[in-house]
Amino acid sequence: MSMLEQIRDPHDLKEIPGEALGALAEEIRQFLVHAVARTGGHLGPNLGVVELTIALHRVFDSPADRILWDTGHQSYVHKLLTGRQDFSKLRGKGGLSGYPSREESEHDVIENSHASTVLGWADGLAKANEVLRKNDHVVAVIGDGALTGGMAWEALNNIAAARDRPLIIVVNDNERSYAPTIGGLANHLATLRTTDGYERFLAWGKEVVQRAPVVGRPLYESLHGAKKGFKDAFAPQGMFEDLGLKYVGPIDGHDIAAVESALRRAARFHGPVLVHCRTEKGRGYRPALEDEADRFHTVGAMDPLTCAPVAPPGPPSWTSVFGDELVKIGEERPDVVAITAAMLQPVGLGKFAAAFPDRTWDVGIAEQHAATSAAGLATGGLHPVFAVYATFLNRAFDQVLMDVALHKCGVTFVLDRAGVTGTDGPSHNGMWDMSVLGVVPGLRIAAPRDADQLRAELREAVDVDDAPTVLRFPKESVGAPVPALERIGGVDVLSRGEREDVLLVSVGVLAPVCLEAAGLLAERGIGITVVDPRWVKPVDPALVRLAATHASVAVVEDNSRNGGVGAAVGQALRDADVDVPLRTFGIPEQFLAHAKRGEVLADIGLTPAEIAGRISASLARKENDA
Amino acid sequence: MSMLEQIRDPHDLKEIPGEALGALAEEIRQFLVHAVARTGGHLGPNLGVVELTIALHRVFDSPADRILWDTGHQSYVHKLLTGRQDFSKLRGKGGLSGYPSREESEHDVIENSHASTVLGWADGLAKANEVLRKNDHVVAVIGDGALTGGMAWEALNNIAAARDRPLIIVVNDNERSYAPTIGGLANHLATLRTTDGYERFLAWGKEVVQRAPVVGRPLYESLHGAKKGFKDAFAPQGMFEDLGLKYVGPIDGHDIAAVESALRRAARFHGPVLVHCRTEKGRGYRPALEDEADRFHTVGAMDPLTCAPVAPPGPPSWTSVFGDELVKIGEERPDVVAITAAMLQPVGLGKFAAAFPDRTWDVGIAEQHAATSAAGLATGGLHPVFAVYATFLNRAFDQVLMDVALHKCGVTFVLDRAGVTGTDGPSHNGMWDMSVLGVVPGLRIAAPRDADQLRAELREAVDVDDAPTVLRFPKESVGAPVPALERIGGVDVLSRGEREDVLLVSVGVLAPVCLEAAGLLAERGIGITVVDPRWVKPVDPALVRLAATHASVAVVEDNSRNGGVGAAVGQALRDADVDVPLRTFGIPEQFLAHAKRGEVLADIGLTPAEIAGRISASLARKENDA
Repeated sequence: MSMLEQIRDPHDLKEIPGEALGALAEEIRQFLVHAVARTGGHLGPNLGVVELTIALHRVFDSPADRILWDTGHQSYVHKLLTGRQDFSKLRGKGGLSGYPSREESEHDVIENSHASTVLGWADGLAKANEVLRKNDHVVAVIGDGALTGGMAWEALNNIAAARDRPLIIVVNDNERSYAPTIGGLANHLATLRTTDGYERFLAWGKEVVQRAPVVGRPLYESLHGAKKGFKDAFAPQGMFEDLGLKYVGPIDGHDIAAVESALRRAARFHGPVLVHCRTEKGRGYRPALEDEADRFHTVGAMDPLTCAPVAPPGPPSWTSVFGDELVKIGEERPDVVAITAAMLQPVGLGKFAAAFPDRTWDVGIAEQHAATSAAGLATGGLHPVFAVYATFLNRAFDQVLMDVALHKCGVTFVLDRAGVTGTDGPSHNGMWDMSVLGVVPGLRIAAPRDADQLRAELREAVDVDDAPTVLRFPKESVGAPVPALERIGGVDVLSRGEREDVLLVSVGVLAPVCLEAAGLLAERGIGITVVDPRWVKPVDPALVRLAATHASVAVVEDNSRNGGVGAAVGQALRDADVDVPLRTFGIPEQFLAHAKRGEVLADIGLTPAEIAGRISASLARKENDA
Repeated sequence: MSMLEQIRDPHDLKEIPGEALGALAEEIRQFLVHAVARTGGHLGPNLGVVELTIALHRVFDSPADRILWDTGHQSYVHKLLTGRQDFSKLRGKGGLSGYPSREESEHDVIENSHASTVLGWADGLAKANEVLRKNDHVVAVIGDGALTGGMAWEALNNIAAARDRPLIIVVNDNERSYAPTIGGLANHLATLRTTDGYERFLAWGKEVVQRAPVVGRPLYESLHGAKKGFKDAFAPQGMFEDLGLKYVGPIDGHDIAAVESALRRAARFHGPVLVHCRTEKGRGYRPALEDEADRFHTVGAMDPLTCAPVAPPGPPSWTSVFGDELVKIGEERPDVVAITAAMLQPVGLGKFAAAFPDRTWDVGIAEQHAATSAAGLATGGLHPVFAVYATFLNRAFDQVLMDVALHKCGVTFVLDRAGVTGTDGPSHNGMWDMSVLGVVPGLRIAAPRDADQLRAELREAVDVDDAPTVLRFPKESVGAPVPALERIGGVDVLSRGEREDVLLVSVGVLAPVCLEAAGLLAERGIGITVVDPRWVKPVDPALVRLAATHASVAVVEDNSRNGGVGAAVGQALRDADVDVPLRTFGIPEQFLAHAKRGEVLADIGLTPAEIAGRISASLARKENDA
């Protein structure tokens, strides 16, 4: 039985002698590399926090003390130390979540995988402890990248304001999130990393211990009588101190004893403390350390030695089709510029940035700023393209509405990972975009069904200079071309049946599913027209006219049914007095657990058989009623 | 002709000799007090920026140089100096907007009145200037309160990163937005205010001028050879310098010469500069200065001498009914706590804060933090109530979805100023809340129709401990009670007709409008049932059953028609195979210009006559078709 296997909860960890912890860390690294290579998952971030996580669980008493992870993709070590060592179905249906999960463990608090939230949670939990007079600790672990997010600033401002409310912030500083951390803050952290704060802190600690009158007397008792020395040790260290946070650091985040020592001291301070730990992403795994593009942040299933992917290379991704086309557009249009929120490569802007470095900006994990600065860029005479995961644009809803749309700015939003993404779980699904953006006056939304449509619709989008446009596509590989029989207005007719029983409106990538459903219905003698409106907002008048000639309408979308394309089509039909029965297929009102995209789509009924079955049953009920 | 009347644009201002500017400032103050007292509007903020605005327009060349106002309610002086001196219909239909407006003037850029956006705009405009090789200045004016918003931080981080991209940030520091500015940042600004930075700056400037070898040689040429001295003068001044911004200040914002001098120097620096100006909100108007509750931030029409309101006191506001009831709940439930985002009094939490100061938190202009810290408070064992203007909750959509709802936190959101607010213009209308929040899994929304329902629904809301709840009500005074004939399921039946031709679903405060419409339809022989579902999300099954017995359904709401209650009811009916014709009445997809709430409602057809007319016409068309 390995050392790791003997740890069933953090109490077991506390009993391991300090000198054995290095071996435990090595064991955990071996486990991580092999487990994640088998299933795919987040590798680099977890390799970077092995020692930090061990130290946290030795110093604090979770779950009474709250250990909170920002963007919990670095919680694998935490899982291993809190009774979860079966990684065989990691991120798969029925397996462990790739993030903390309250269902899995009482040691988990924050399931949200959007960055920069942890300080807000921590502030709330610390306030609750204060009101309820609890002395438990609240410890928030946040990356340097996540500190660039506005929420983190709002929280820091509040945390620092209450100088006698204890709260420990651990900055896990690896100088990057997906991409190297940028901005004034990154420069400041770099300055802090080169100061001698920690050495002074250590020297002071040694001095206090030596001066303690009774040998063996607990250090904290001495502290009480040594406030002045304490204060000097936590001497002003730049902006965090300016705000009112005690600063401790920089600490070598791979030195367990040093981290434990810093955390124990921070835990005794009756107020907000920031512990600055330097760590190395991918620590101990050479391929990750040597890869400058940080492709080991998340990996698919692979050979852990050669790093060769288990799955053969598939067709190009939607992301790469977009990225390639944008470079072509950039060559033709010097006014087209690109923005990413700390995800240059994942959203496909790498080639554009290489070709046009002066026209590409990484704004940090700062979607709000991406949107509002885009409004500024557009007002200044350029056409910005902000490429972002669909789920993350939710952070900037107000800015899209109030800065971009109200000011009639020509800004193109390209939403990658739209719809069901699957294995990343509930907070990565991009399933609300068309509903939420659907309210924005003047905004236009396109959902391309294949690579050619993506290229065409991207060009249509960047030609709009007086309103925001949105393109959305999913995570999966781009499929085969889906040709149109004809275009009516802006609507592509994909197939026609023998009669006009049902107009089946297919949104984006679900075209093949709809065509297959139409085939099944045709076998049952039901006449179906399948159309792709291409631009789903605003609703095309041609679509309304088509609906009027059919006996019923169905809308199929990879988006929440609440307020989605189905709802918009329904409203357009009612406004035109077209009261044909309408059925809508989409994502029900629920958070979707992690599983493969195909499994999730099957679970929620977005399959040809299910769609055909429900349309056919609905028609049958109507006939019975009549 | 007064001095002010002779200023038709900023060029005229530049020709006024410096010694006459004090008199001009006094003239502007007189104008503001009397003009705003006549129409109502923002008074305190504008009195505070008279000298600052004069200096800005003398130093810079708007509109080539971009002078940007955060939360543009302090743009009245800017309007006066850029050709807009007819304030007779300020904020009224057809009159001047209470904010900058691109339609009014080429000198206006940002119309959005949500706080903390200006630095994002400025960063975008500065980047555009860089790409297009323009040397125009970008000057962003932001209050100390607005710096607590996360967007401002995201922007600062980006602005500071580009050390050779010129951009001037003017911090208008009056130590408060609506409420005194709070948090670590406020403490830091207070520290800066007491430093001698400006004195050192002045001394250095004098020295450089004296050392310049040729008398009259422009100062900026000397600067080039005096980099070292320049750097010393802009010496490290805390967190802004730590981030990489040059800091100039503190400057007396009411000393025009001093502000001009600081701005001219900042304009010559080839990089981001922050100019810290201290100003006094309400300057020169004793009633404003003496009012600690800052009630002169916005005023209604009043007597400028006695400050007595022109309109007689009306019935209590929705805000006060909520605030009083929450105090009662707080007395009964020690776990109920309250949060505001820098608007304690305007959202009605003043009494709660007075009664329970340890259970009330003002988080700054930080709606994201309000929502996420509320999730932490709920997880920690409390029930938070976050009271906020409906339009401002859009800032926290992702946090409501991902932190509160995903984690099944019992948090009550109370949306004041929901629906059409009117005179504040497009960015204050709370017209998207029910659509956007309508997608959030598990979230429940109530729209009270009268004071009794508000009290009852608030109590129902704080009893929900496993999901977010939302209450929404408008700006206007609370109306007379609207009694129910009976309650079916959770649905109140307000009136019944002789037949069941139309089920009229009234949302919240529109109940009297719907009842009057029903009366008009009854006169035309149409039988109407008017119901109030009370909780509009989820759709009550009783409502679906009621719809099934009626020949048609109409939904009336003070919210965007896109994805609103009408859309949700439509979906619930379709899911139940209830294919009766449905008509929805709400706010069309557009930004609404400023005017009184009643005028806007009339313009968009939310009146009894219009609703009755359209329902009746729709029924007639159906009969003709049949």
